Amino acid sequence: MLQVAVIEGLPEVSAGDDLVALIAEAAELEDGDILVVTSKIVSKSEGRMVAADDREQAITDETVRVVATRATANGGLTRIVENRLGIISAAAGVDASNTPDGTVLLLPLDPDGSARALCVGLREATGASVGVIISDTLGRAWRQGQTDVAIGAAGLQVFDDLRGSLDNAGKPLAVTMPCVADEIASAGDLVKGKTSGNPVAVVRGLGRLVGDLDLPGAATIVRPVEEDMFRTGTDESYDEGYRDGFAEGQAEAVGS
Amino acid sequence: MLQVAVIEGLPEVSAGDDLVALIAEAAELEDGDILVVTSKIVSKSEGRMVAADDREQAITDETVRVVATRATANGGLTRIVENRLGIISAAAGVDASNTPDGTVLLLPLDPDGSARALCVGLREATGASVGVIISDTLGRAWRQGQTDVAIGAAGLQVFDDLRGSLDNAGKPLAVTMPCVADEIASAGDLVKGKTSGNPVAVVRGLGRLVGDLDLPGAATIVRPVEEDMFRTGTDESYDEGYRDGFAEGQAEAVGS
Repeated sequence: MLQVAVIEGLPEVSAGDDLVALIAEAAELEDGDILVVTSKIVSKSEGRMVAADDREQAITDETVRVVATRATANGGLTRIVENRLGIISAAAGVDASNTPDGTVLLLPLDPDGSARALCVGLREATGASVGVIISDTLGRAWRQGQTDVAIGAAGLQVFDDLRGSLDNAGKPLAVTMPCVADEIASAGDLVKGKTSGNPVAVVRGLGRLVGDLDLPGAATIVRPVEEDMFRTGTDESYDEGYRDGFAEGQAEAVGS
Repeated sequence: MLQVAVIEGLPEVSAGDDLVALIAEAAELEDGDILVVTSKIVSKSEGRMVAADDREQAITDETVRVVATRATANGGLTRIVENRLGIISAAAGVDASNTPDGTVLLLPLDPDGSARALCVGLREATGASVGVIISDTLGRAWRQGQTDVAIGAAGLQVFDDLRGSLDNAGKPLAVTMPCVADEIASAGDLVKGKTSGNPVAVVRGLGRLVGDLDLPGAATIVRPVEEDMFRTGTDESYDEGYRDGFAEGQAEAVGS
């Protein structure tokens, strides 16, 4: 049995606030609990709200690589970009919802580090051996809508590595590596929602995943670009190939 | 508060078994419950196990479009393909785990239809207004590992459509459309696991999402190919562009 509940009564978070103290006071944590903390409040506590009249410019500033772009029906531009964490998304993690006009909220500089600091602090403050996930909302290449995923993690296994396990029929589960951190982040979103004002969920019943503080973080979930079969969009890749091919074709024809 | 629990005591499922009867007998369902049913047992009950000495050939047979391929370190080939449901995955939904040697399990022919039949049957058998999700395990373009998603759904909203809602700061949540069906499937996987032999989870606490039987199914989650910025892999798209560009470059040089 898994139980997922929001922590009620957390105040609005501002720069410099001590999230460990706020959470430890509002929640009764037990060994094996996993906290799913919306990245937004981590960013706010870390002072990552910046002045930005133009969200599009802020996205450009946070982008390290443009993956794909496409014109939208209303004359805008959908941009899929890689941010400095290697995460590929539509807005580089730049959040203009739930922020005052003229400001945007950037992602934490080091979400795994933020998760570890929260995890260490909460374990000390409460005596409970907990895990911490920092969640954000991402779109997907081939599926519509968004799901919450883990962009930071500490004190838990982010993958339930079943490679080498046997199925019920006694055959090896060859390539199965469920990303439980992303699944837990999604479960947390189902109770936190986007409009409820409850930015932290506690997931109880997955103590088997909770462990040492030096377990790999959520950065290990990001697929390295050299293994990414979709590292640039279809149109962008075609265009690049076309340019290269055109030049080669001309050169060959002229040279022959 | 969300509760996610497996239904214990379900027997091994075979072709022709009445899943409604099996589930209704094993579970005490309440209004608002959402069942997450592993596609594997739906396939088995629908007789979708087929003889196949060669899983790779079975994948080829189920493929309607090759999206991307890449050689693996051990001399094999990773294939990302679109199956007849439009779902893009590494194995076209062909499952060779938990099946006898020499057989593979194909996806249900119409997972939304299967979900609807289950939903209708369970509502009749139990009197409880429940929703049904049929889940499968998919990889992701930019993130390692897999998560469970909804490939069939009935009797619930698959998206929590927040477009037009206001955030806490009173600003519109422009493009936010959480795919709650996928998030619920992921939550179900956290208790079902891949090796536990418990193929059905009950999610309690999301009655707000449960509704009419004619709500759109999981087919609406699949992004239409014409809106898919990653409809073919980077290398495949580049190569296609290169061939076209090369031919054009040659023709232009010759014609000038």
